[in-house]
Amino acid sequence: MEGVVGPLDELMRPSSIAFYGASNNPLKMGTMQLANILEGGYAGRVFPIHPSEERVMGLPAYRSIAEVGEPVDLVQMVLPPDLVPGIMEECGRCGVRRAIVISGGFKETLRREGVDRERQLREVARRYGIRFLGPNCVGIMNGLISLNTTTIPEPPFGGGIALVSQSGAYTSMLNPYLREQGVRICQTISVGNEADIDIVDCLEYLLEEDAVKAVGLYVETVRRPREFIAAARRLAAAKPVAAVYVGGNEAGARSSLSHTGALAGPDGIYDGIFRQAGVMRVADMDLMIDALWVLSTQPLLRGERVAVITNSGGPGTSLAYHLEKAGLKVPVFSDALQSRLRSITTPTASLSNPLDITFDPNPGVYKDILEAVFSSGEVDGALLYGVFGPSDMAVNLRKRFPELIPFERKMEESFRGFLAEFADIPRRYGMPLVVMSLLEGSAATKRILVEAGVPVYQAAARAAGAIRASLEYHRLRERLRGEEAGGPREEAG
Amino acid sequence: MEGVVGPLDELMRPSSIAFYGASNNPLKMGTMQLANILEGGYAGRVFPIHPSEERVMGLPAYRSIAEVGEPVDLVQMVLPPDLVPGIMEECGRCGVRRAIVISGGFKETLRREGVDRERQLREVARRYGIRFLGPNCVGIMNGLISLNTTTIPEPPFGGGIALVSQSGAYTSMLNPYLREQGVRICQTISVGNEADIDIVDCLEYLLEEDAVKAVGLYVETVRRPREFIAAARRLAAAKPVAAVYVGGNEAGARSSLSHTGALAGPDGIYDGIFRQAGVMRVADMDLMIDALWVLSTQPLLRGERVAVITNSGGPGTSLAYHLEKAGLKVPVFSDALQSRLRSITTPTASLSNPLDITFDPNPGVYKDILEAVFSSGEVDGALLYGVFGPSDMAVNLRKRFPELIPFERKMEESFRGFLAEFADIPRRYGMPLVVMSLLEGSAATKRILVEAGVPVYQAAARAAGAIRASLEYHRLRERLRGEEAGGPREEAG
Repeated sequence: MEGVVGPLDELMRPSSIAFYGASNNPLKMGTMQLANILEGGYAGRVFPIHPSEERVMGLPAYRSIAEVGEPVDLVQMVLPPDLVPGIMEECGRCGVRRAIVISGGFKETLRREGVDRERQLREVARRYGIRFLGPNCVGIMNGLISLNTTTIPEPPFGGGIALVSQSGAYTSMLNPYLREQGVRICQTISVGNEADIDIVDCLEYLLEEDAVKAVGLYVETVRRPREFIAAARRLAAAKPVAAVYVGGNEAGARSSLSHTGALAGPDGIYDGIFRQAGVMRVADMDLMIDALWVLSTQPLLRGERVAVITNSGGPGTSLAYHLEKAGLKVPVFSDALQSRLRSITTPTASLSNPLDITFDPNPGVYKDILEAVFSSGEVDGALLYGVFGPSDMAVNLRKRFPELIPFERKMEESFRGFLAEFADIPRRYGMPLVVMSLLEGSAATKRILVEAGVPVYQAAARAAGAIRASLEYHRLRERLRGEEAGGPREEAG
Repeated sequence: MEGVVGPLDELMRPSSIAFYGASNNPLKMGTMQLANILEGGYAGRVFPIHPSEERVMGLPAYRSIAEVGEPVDLVQMVLPPDLVPGIMEECGRCGVRRAIVISGGFKETLRREGVDRERQLREVARRYGIRFLGPNCVGIMNGLISLNTTTIPEPPFGGGIALVSQSGAYTSMLNPYLREQGVRICQTISVGNEADIDIVDCLEYLLEEDAVKAVGLYVETVRRPREFIAAARRLAAAKPVAAVYVGGNEAGARSSLSHTGALAGPDGIYDGIFRQAGVMRVADMDLMIDALWVLSTQPLLRGERVAVITNSGGPGTSLAYHLEKAGLKVPVFSDALQSRLRSITTPTASLSNPLDITFDPNPGVYKDILEAVFSSGEVDGALLYGVFGPSDMAVNLRKRFPELIPFERKMEESFRGFLAEFADIPRRYGMPLVVMSLLEGSAATKRILVEAGVPVYQAAARAAGAIRASLEYHRLRERLRGEEAGGPREEAG
C-alpha cells in the first residue's frame, strides 16, 4: 500500500473545486452547499458551473467544465440524476479525477432506471479514472482545510473525531447535536450509495490522517466484508473505531433496503464482523459520540480502577453504581491515601471512594484531590461531578447584588485559569478524566472544561459508559498489536 | 385518607415563609435561596430572620420568629446544625407547623453527634406537631405558586412533571439539564435524610395534585417498603411513576451509606418492590426524564404498532431498528394506506413503514401524512424525524442572501402556525407523537415543537425507549386498575 495515493487523499484536500448545481436561488440545495463552502474559510479556488447565470453568488460562473481552463481537483454535482453520467464524462475529458455526486435517483430507488443509471455512472468514471463519492450523499467536511460541502453550516471543527456514514443525515445533521454538547470533529465523509468509494477506502485513508484520533461509522451494510475487516484492523491498531449498525432486525433491514439498496445481515453476523475487525459496536449515535469524545481527547484507561470525585451524594452514588455495572472497579482508597486526602478536604468530606467533598467553597481542592489520587497508583482514571464556576448559579443573585458582576468577572478569570490547569492533569499523569455535569452547555464551567479537552456528560451511566469504552479500546489495541506481532489470533479470520 | 390534609399540602403552598440563614452576603447558600424565592414570582409574604441585620435583601429582618407577629406557614432553615433543634423549638412555640431544614450535619455524617442531633430534632418537631423536610436537603420548587426555595435559579416551570429525590443535587441541579432539553416541570421535592416527611408522604401528596401528570423518583433507599408499595400503587393507578435506584451493587451501596446513612438493598429486591408498587424502574436520570417527558405531554401508546415518518433513511432505519429492539412493531402499511400516502407525497417517497418522505420542500406534507396514518387504524402512535423550519440551516445563506431575512421571518411565522396545528394532531387522535431531532435546543423547529408539548429526543434509541415507556405505563395502569377492581393479582403482595 505504501506510496499509493488513495482516492480520498485528493478528494478531501482539493486545491480547487468545480460546483454543478448552485445558483442564485437560496432555496436550492446546491446553493446552500456552495454558501457553506464560501463562508467556511476554504482557501482553494471555486468555480461554479451554470448553464445561464453570468455570476453565481458573486463568483464568475462557467458554462461548462471545459470553459474553466484551469486544473480542477474536485467536482461536486447537485444535478438532476439523468444529467449526472454525461457531466461526469465531460469532467473526465477535462482531466478531473475526483468527484462528489450529491444527486439521488440511482440504485437507492430500487427501480431499474436508477440501477442502470448508477451502473452507467460507474462505467464512465472507470473509463476516465475518476474516483467518486456517492451518488445519493451529502458531501464532506474537512476541518484541516476548513472545507464543508454539505448543507449544514458551521461544523464544530477543531477536534480529532472523523465520522463516516452511509446515512447523509447522520453525517451532516449530527453537527448541531455535536455543537450543543461541545464535541469537536475533524472530518466527516458521507459515502451515500458507495458506487465507487466505500467505507473501506475511508478506513484506509483515515489511517494516514494523523489529525484524526478516533473514527465513528454509521453502517447499514458492509459491502466488502473481507476488505473491511482487514482495513479496520489496521486502523483500529492505530486509533479507535466505533460503529453503529441498525440493519440487524426485521424492521431495520426492511428500512435499510429501501434506503441504501443494501441487504443488511442479522445482528449476530455483524457482531462477528465488527469483532474480527477490531471495531467497537455501540447501540446508537449518541453513545458513539460519547465514546469517541473521551477516546479523542483523553489518555486511555489502562486498568479497571476508577476514582469517583464528587461534591454531592446522589451523583457520586450514581457514578459508582454505573461504573461497577459497567464492569469497572471503584476501589476503597488506602489509609495512606485517605489521610493525604484528609489534609486537603473539609472535615465533612467522605474520603473512601467515592470521595465526597461535600460543600467546599474553594474550587482549588479539586486540583489537589485529582493530583493526590492520580499520583497514588491506586486508580487508572477518574470520574468527577460537582465543580462549578462562580457565576453558573448566580442569575437571581445578580439582580439583587449588582456589585457581584465585576467581582464575578474577576473570579471567573481566575477560575478559567484554574480549570485549564485542572484539565491538564490527566495528560500529565496519562490517565483519563471524565466529568459528569448537569449544567447547560452555555455554563462557564462546562464550556471551559470542554474547551480544555475534558469530555462532559449529562448522565452517570453515559459518563461510566464512555470511560469503559476507553478501557475497552486499550484492551482491543493490545490484542490487535499482539496479533500483528505474530501472537495467536483470538478469532479465526 | 379523604379529608385528611397531608404534611406536604401546606408545605408546598405556604402563604408566608420565615427564612433563617439568609443575609446580605451573596456568597452564602441561604442568601442564594432567598434570592431565588424573591425573584421567582412567589406572591406570599417572606420574613427573613437575622440576629443582627436591620434589613436582609431589602426586606425588614426580624430577630426571631416571635418578633414576626403574624402567622407563618413555613420556615426554611439554613443554619449551623447545632442551632437547628433550638430554633425548631422556638418555631413550634410560635405556632409554626411546617419546616424545611436545609442544614447538613445530622445522621448522614454517620457520627454519633449527628445521629443524636437528628433524633433530638425529630423529638422537638413531634412535640409541637411540626412536619418537616430534611435535614440535609435543598428545598422545594412549586411552579403552581412560583415558589423556588433551592439555590438553583429559574426552574423550567410550566409542565406536568414532579420530581422527588433523596439527592439534593438531583433535585435542583437537574434543572439546567431540563432547561437545555426544553422539558418543563411542575414541582420538585428534596427529601434529604427523611427524618420526618419521606417519599411515602410525597407519593400521597402528589396523588392529590391534579397539575402533576407524571412523577419521577431518585431513590437510594425505601425506608417503609409496605407503605411505599401501597402509596405508589395508588399513585401509579392515576399517573405514571418512574424511579432511578442506584444502591443495588457494592459500590452503589457503599456510596449510598455515606450519603444518606441509608442501607441499600440488592438490585433484585428493589426490582421486586418497584414491580409491586407499579413503579417503572429506569436506568439513569436522563432516561427517567425521557420517559416522564412523553408521559406528561402525550396521549399514551395503547398498542405496539408505531409508524416511523422520516425524510432521511439513516434516522428512519435507526428508529425502526430501535423500536423493534424495544419490543414494538413497525407494521408495513396496507395497500389502501399506501395509496392514500402516494397522493400526498412526492414520487421518490418510500411508503411502506418507515415512511421516507425523502426531499419535499413542503412541510405541510407532515401534517397530511400524520393525519392519514393516525386515522388509518393501522398504528397506535408515531415517531418522526426530519421536519425543519426554514431558518434552521440558513446561517451561511443569510450572509450571502440578506434578502432572505425578512422572507424567512414570514416563513417562520407560517411555519410556527403549521407546527402548532401539527402538534395538536396527537391529542385529536389520542395517540402519541414523539420526534427525534438532532437540532440544537435553540433551533426554531425544535423550540416550537417542544413548546407545543411534543417531546423531542436526540437519539433514535432514546425516542424508541420513551415511546415504549408510554406503552409500558398503559399496560401497568390497566393491571393496577384491574387489581383494584378485585381482579387477580399478578404478584403476591
